[in-house]
Amino acid sequence: MTSFNEILGPDGVLTDAADVEPYLTDHRRLYRGRALAVVLPRSVDQISRLLAYCNEKRIAVVPHGGNTSYCGGATPDESGQQIVLALKRLNRIRNVDPLNYSLTVEAGCILADAQRAADEVERLFPLSLGSEGTCQIGGNLSTNAGGTNVLRYGMMRDLVLGLEVVLADGRILSTLGGLRKDNTGYDIKSLFLGAEGTLGVITAATLKLFSKARTSATAFAAVRNVQAAVELLSRLREATGDRVSSFELIPRIGIELTTRHIPGVKDPLKQAYEWHVLCEITSSRNADKLDDLLMESLEAAFEANLVLDAVVAKSDREREALWKIRETIPEAQRLDGASLKHDISLPITSLAEFVAKAGDWIRTNVPDGRLVAYGHVGDGNLHFNLNQSPGTPRDAFLAREASIKRVIHDMVRDFGGSFSAEHGIGRLKVDELERYAQPVELDLMRAVKRALDPNGILNPGKVVR
Amino acid sequence: MTSFNEILGPDGVLTDAADVEPYLTDHRRLYRGRALAVVLPRSVDQISRLLAYCNEKRIAVVPHGGNTSYCGGATPDESGQQIVLALKRLNRIRNVDPLNYSLTVEAGCILADAQRAADEVERLFPLSLGSEGTCQIGGNLSTNAGGTNVLRYGMMRDLVLGLEVVLADGRILSTLGGLRKDNTGYDIKSLFLGAEGTLGVITAATLKLFSKARTSATAFAAVRNVQAAVELLSRLREATGDRVSSFELIPRIGIELTTRHIPGVKDPLKQAYEWHVLCEITSSRNADKLDDLLMESLEAAFEANLVLDAVVAKSDREREALWKIRETIPEAQRLDGASLKHDISLPITSLAEFVAKAGDWIRTNVPDGRLVAYGHVGDGNLHFNLNQSPGTPRDAFLAREASIKRVIHDMVRDFGGSFSAEHGIGRLKVDELERYAQPVELDLMRAVKRALDPNGILNPGKVVR
Repeated sequence: MTSFNEILGPDGVLTDAADVEPYLTDHRRLYRGRALAVVLPRSVDQISRLLAYCNEKRIAVVPHGGNTSYCGGATPDESGQQIVLALKRLNRIRNVDPLNYSLTVEAGCILADAQRAADEVERLFPLSLGSEGTCQIGGNLSTNAGGTNVLRYGMMRDLVLGLEVVLADGRILSTLGGLRKDNTGYDIKSLFLGAEGTLGVITAATLKLFSKARTSATAFAAVRNVQAAVELLSRLREATGDRVSSFELIPRIGIELTTRHIPGVKDPLKQAYEWHVLCEITSSRNADKLDDLLMESLEAAFEANLVLDAVVAKSDREREALWKIRETIPEAQRLDGASLKHDISLPITSLAEFVAKAGDWIRTNVPDGRLVAYGHVGDGNLHFNLNQSPGTPRDAFLAREASIKRVIHDMVRDFGGSFSAEHGIGRLKVDELERYAQPVELDLMRAVKRALDPNGILNPGKVVR
Repeated sequence: MTSFNEILGPDGVLTDAADVEPYLTDHRRLYRGRALAVVLPRSVDQISRLLAYCNEKRIAVVPHGGNTSYCGGATPDESGQQIVLALKRLNRIRNVDPLNYSLTVEAGCILADAQRAADEVERLFPLSLGSEGTCQIGGNLSTNAGGTNVLRYGMMRDLVLGLEVVLADGRILSTLGGLRKDNTGYDIKSLFLGAEGTLGVITAATLKLFSKARTSATAFAAVRNVQAAVELLSRLREATGDRVSSFELIPRIGIELTTRHIPGVKDPLKQAYEWHVLCEITSSRNADKLDDLLMESLEAAFEANLVLDAVVAKSDREREALWKIRETIPEAQRLDGASLKHDISLPITSLAEFVAKAGDWIRTNVPDGRLVAYGHVGDGNLHFNLNQSPGTPRDAFLAREASIKRVIHDMVRDFGGSFSAEHGIGRLKVDELERYAQPVELDLMRAVKRALDPNGILNPGKVVR
């Protein structure tokens, strides 16, 4: 511990069991590891010296943000030989530049704090996800986080102007500063985005801001089927001048589960329909009458037999009530029983056919499971989950996880889709990556890993083996 | 030639001097090379076999698109030992998917043809540049092309969903198919975007489409100074709901040169002002009254003393006349005499200070030169050119090119800017990259080059040595 203490100071190194405990388990409790120590650096310089030391001594380093990974990406293994590098003390907002529409923040900054810093200067940082009150920017960058505004503003990768990264050998690469155009050689920074800390430790980023949304309109609409949802999105994008920021698919069972398990959730429509979308359009222009625009567009879609019924929120309270349906589906699923989860994406054009085909397979082959398919239609991203049917045995259902996953993921591949749309690989999906990636793609990933981290000290066992 | 003929067929290999000639010189006539042969493959499979062969025999391959590089990126060297790989026969539109808002095209497709394919299905492919009638998608991808719509839609890198690439050893990597979300490992495809054919040969891409612009408004405004232009942009972005698609800075001398040299160009304002912007807002929503919106926003900016005078185009003809000013500046510069060009970018917030400081330096130190600084304010990208003053000796002016460039580029670096905003590195700026890149960044680029092209057969001498 001497060298860690020298580099980080005595309060920068945790080794007591109770102090270390919170860093050993992932958010979903899939894994429980051990650690040589947890280190809490206060500066980029400390991280630089730490990695140089670890690289020399071949000590594995597991970068750790808000610990909200769905794939165990920030949890040390069981060896007790890895150190956890927690970024939470590196949490400054370094610079907010409203005229440049940019924000420079450190990796340990909580996402909600970054959003607030932008909001205070009348700008929008659009990344928004369920865990925004605890997840950290470094984790968002390292997992290329998505969320509910991807349709309009892109994933985290699309929101980055520059990065500061400490490499495996302790050298610091910085492309901070907020340039929007810079064609000087290879796009090295992109390698670190979505690399889950296996190629370098991101310590800060310059992020893109947008004009603050000053007005919005939110609707909940029953649609004829999944294909109608896809066509409705296309119409809304055109009719609103590409101002659709969220467009979420919600099945009947999503309404059933949330109205049953979550206090206060009600079906906003008078009749029971099979498929719904929650959609929101926003504008920075106060004078835009978005409610009218949305209502007119939905009426036209009703005439075209895409929409069966719809409500537009008339107040913030109504808007929140609509969003609550979408946001509490995961919690309602949990309260209803065991579930098997798949975070998949498809070309949007194939969504309806995929849902029909995979749904048929499930009805025939998993009688004790019910399909709960919901999510970000505009991104082709479905949380394609199965929930245990009421009254069936939990263990027997869960025991089939691997074989069901295999069928679903194979089917996703056959449709040209991805088995991990937004949650990344972490430790959980390393096998899946080896199964589904093209061999040449895996070779290139491994070549990049070898080039950037020749001693393999950065988050070993995650992403690529 | 036997093996080339075997792979490509007799009509796929050019060796006659007259046939080869057009491939030996770059668009700006900076370089004149020689070539072992020019090859014209008709399929990805042919390219795969060709590269496998060249990799084995250590024959250097120079990928060649529409030959519109500003940096000699597609021109063979003087050795006569390199082959030119022209992509122009790989020019199919493979797929247009309006519901997925995507387009899959081959590398040899002309940019304007890709735009047209999108337009035919009521979609927009937003990349737009001066050479769009001749440049090819493969070149646009390999140089991360910019243009006049970057402000709203991003650079080419931002418009790519997937790529098909032939690697140095002939293996084919394909991420085509149009997924919007795919977090399965490292972002390998980004490496090829902007790599100028030095890491692989891009053969096709799936590109993002947007809702077709159905209405637009265009204004030409005199602004108090450069800082006022920057502030005006911020106001317009907010006031129009981020619908500003172009925002171009034009100095007094831009008006003087174009009205003098280009038939039909007139100053649209009654008085002579120092700085102007040409701005355009667009929407896919027909009902948006963009003219009124733009006029109101400009009037408010007039009240705030940012705008001194402005006109909004009242017809397509008036719109074209305004754009003609911007688009003919390079030609007017050429007709006026010799010029020294710098393609720089800065954080937008520093633009005004940079223009003031660098302008002062030029007035003091280059009495035979006049500053012609114009370009994409919204991207912080200026074409920061010097034109020979009338009546001064051309050769003496041009003889100072290297020393003037050094001062300008050093100043750009001190402001945190880039010496190559959109034109790339090619052969022309390899020295500049070595001077201005961080050593660690150069090391990483070289490590990536070694990992992907260990025998150095792909466009050697370009980007990194």
